[in-house]
Amino acid sequence: MAGFELDMTFLRSRRHAKWTMFGAEAIPAWVAEMDFALALPIRRAIAELSDRMDFGYPLREGGVAENAVGTAFARRMKSRFGWEIDPQLVQPVAELVQGTFAPIMAFSDPGDGIVLHTPAYPPFYEAISTLGRTLVANRLRDGARRFEIDFDALEAAIGPRTRMILLCNPQNPTGRVFEPAELARIAAIALARDLVVVSDEIHSDLVFPGHRHIPFATLSPEIAARTVTISSATKSFNIPGLRCAVMHFGTQALRDRFHERIPRRLLGAPAIVGIDATIAAWDEGQPWLDEVMDHLAANRDHLVLRVARDLPGVSFHPPEATYMAWLDCSGLKLDRPAQRFFLEEAKVAMSAGETFDPAAPHFLRLNFATSRSILDEIIDRMAAAVRRRGRMGAAAS
Amino acid sequence: MAGFELDMTFLRSRRHAKWTMFGAEAIPAWVAEMDFALALPIRRAIAELSDRMDFGYPLREGGVAENAVGTAFARRMKSRFGWEIDPQLVQPVAELVQGTFAPIMAFSDPGDGIVLHTPAYPPFYEAISTLGRTLVANRLRDGARRFEIDFDALEAAIGPRTRMILLCNPQNPTGRVFEPAELARIAAIALARDLVVVSDEIHSDLVFPGHRHIPFATLSPEIAARTVTISSATKSFNIPGLRCAVMHFGTQALRDRFHERIPRRLLGAPAIVGIDATIAAWDEGQPWLDEVMDHLAANRDHLVLRVARDLPGVSFHPPEATYMAWLDCSGLKLDRPAQRFFLEEAKVAMSAGETFDPAAPHFLRLNFATSRSILDEIIDRMAAAVRRRGRMGAAAS
Repeated sequence: MAGFELDMTFLRSRRHAKWTMFGAEAIPAWVAEMDFALALPIRRAIAELSDRMDFGYPLREGGVAENAVGTAFARRMKSRFGWEIDPQLVQPVAELVQGTFAPIMAFSDPGDGIVLHTPAYPPFYEAISTLGRTLVANRLRDGARRFEIDFDALEAAIGPRTRMILLCNPQNPTGRVFEPAELARIAAIALARDLVVVSDEIHSDLVFPGHRHIPFATLSPEIAARTVTISSATKSFNIPGLRCAVMHFGTQALRDRFHERIPRRLLGAPAIVGIDATIAAWDEGQPWLDEVMDHLAANRDHLVLRVARDLPGVSFHPPEATYMAWLDCSGLKLDRPAQRFFLEEAKVAMSAGETFDPAAPHFLRLNFATSRSILDEIIDRMAAAVRRRGRMGAAAS
Repeated sequence: MAGFELDMTFLRSRRHAKWTMFGAEAIPAWVAEMDFALALPIRRAIAELSDRMDFGYPLREGGVAENAVGTAFARRMKSRFGWEIDPQLVQPVAELVQGTFAPIMAFSDPGDGIVLHTPAYPPFYEAISTLGRTLVANRLRDGARRFEIDFDALEAAIGPRTRMILLCNPQNPTGRVFEPAELARIAAIALARDLVVVSDEIHSDLVFPGHRHIPFATLSPEIAARTVTISSATKSFNIPGLRCAVMHFGTQALRDRFHERIPRRLLGAPAIVGIDATIAAWDEGQPWLDEVMDHLAANRDHLVLRVARDLPGVSFHPPEATYMAWLDCSGLKLDRPAQRFFLEEAKVAMSAGETFDPAAPHFLRLNFATSRSILDEIIDRMAAAVRRRGRMGAAAS
């Protein structure tokens, strides 16, 4: 058992969403939290603040503390992806949802179209509809070994009022890491149709061996000039409750255009705990994340084997990134949405496919960032529910 | 020495603004941080999160955690001021500056006038100018025993494009707690001229005996319907780095009007540490605050005596609330702004009068939320600098 795994008693003793929302009988495998202890540098950063009660107006690096998130993000992008950015072009925000609402409001008007590859993270739908923008949905094609962008459909869907592509790469929930050729085609379309690209790269730390993340803004200076990259340490370092994320503007001109509509101080500022935890994660957390990634890769491979063996009628493409498996349960021919079936019959709480794509109630998103034993219990419970249903079906016929 | 006082060695060991910005030789008495240990319930709340690494997506009271700030604020307003509010009308934000920018954007347009009683908190000026609104400044009149609103000047200053009064009560930096008659006159003007009132009441926990805070929205239902109250536990409980504040809308209609321009999720959400600390402060922190207020009242009275005795040429009205003294140094006839004089000559870092009112470089804001011994050293240093100057003046003449 890896040193960072937490047991069920401890997990159930806490107050955050994953282990409390569905009650004490269910095993949760839904929201993007990992059942792991935090990296030591993060714990140390929080303990230092806490021990010294250092919660006054925060300064770091000689300026307001939130600016230090920008310099830490620049160091991180350089060390991970060789991407050199100007920290002045980084705007800290509380979380990616705020970081999605803000550029949509800045770079489009009500009624304008926003491209979204579906299935997609539910708050993206919420942002587009709350803000009165028009959803330009382009469903990923379920290919032989992975989901793929249907570029013909994408080109056809873009109209004269389409203003933006909301890109998610690595993609949630399919786990795709888009390849250079795919990104180049998206870039060509963005340039040809004069679109701003908001690139959610929050999963870029969670890429499995054999795949490589390419920040969209690195494709060319012309692309950088129209790209807002949004990211955070919260997903890969397991600290969403600390609320610290970044928006990076590819050029000062793009940032200036943004601030014409959204003044900087309308966005608030992260708390010092989120700031220091994020800096510790990015600067010192990689050894922990390397171990976690080994564990996640092993869990993914284990899930592939066990689904094939014990869950006939369920299939998925092994994710190239993220700790999510996008399970296609259409082979089970269930009488209700898959999420509801497994919650009711197996007491396993996964994320409902229809929240990522209204046409996908036969899909589930399973979070496998847990211990091997909990993952096995999840699959055991699911397999038993499917077997029971099989027997009942046989008895009824 | 009160149990919550911290010594200078400890204070200098931390990273927040107050004790680091002006170097190791200066004694700081500027930004609104208190040199006191945090209330035990706050420390416990933070320790519990930290010990359990409970930093997942936060839930409280069966919903998203930030909503629990609204219910805690409602309990607090009820217990402190007998003010019954609907928690649904409370919107958590990161801090009061965000909570100032947002209603200005929602309830006025560029070019519209915003009334501000001056001297005033510098970010209010920043909000008005950054957002392209017109400052309608009404200077408080320096009366016999306190600063007072010049109502004739106020009425004359309000024009057809004036849309809002930015009220600060208790007032920073003058320490005024406006009385019922004064508030009623402001209310009558707001009604007669159809103005929205943004009422910053962050200092309402810091009122000295003999004075009473009245929430502006309690004046009448008609006033509530046009009042946004902004507040936070950060000032009175010494946790500004945790970034948690509230906006309260007097009616749902006012809130709806606000959200037409400012969607809720554009505002982000506070981190769980700020949420739990705020709830602990409001629900369980009052015994600590009572002790702190006794200490602050004694420090205020001590400051009155010592300024009268040792700082001839300096005068002030003892504040009715806040731990700030607004010192008039005009009697010193200094050759430079008072803040600069005392920083350079006394190594005491106070807040510059001209940042609260461009016409007030001869004023200083002195933060007396510190131990008695540090307060005495501040006054000793100031008095010595004034004496040295007197001798040099005598030598030169």
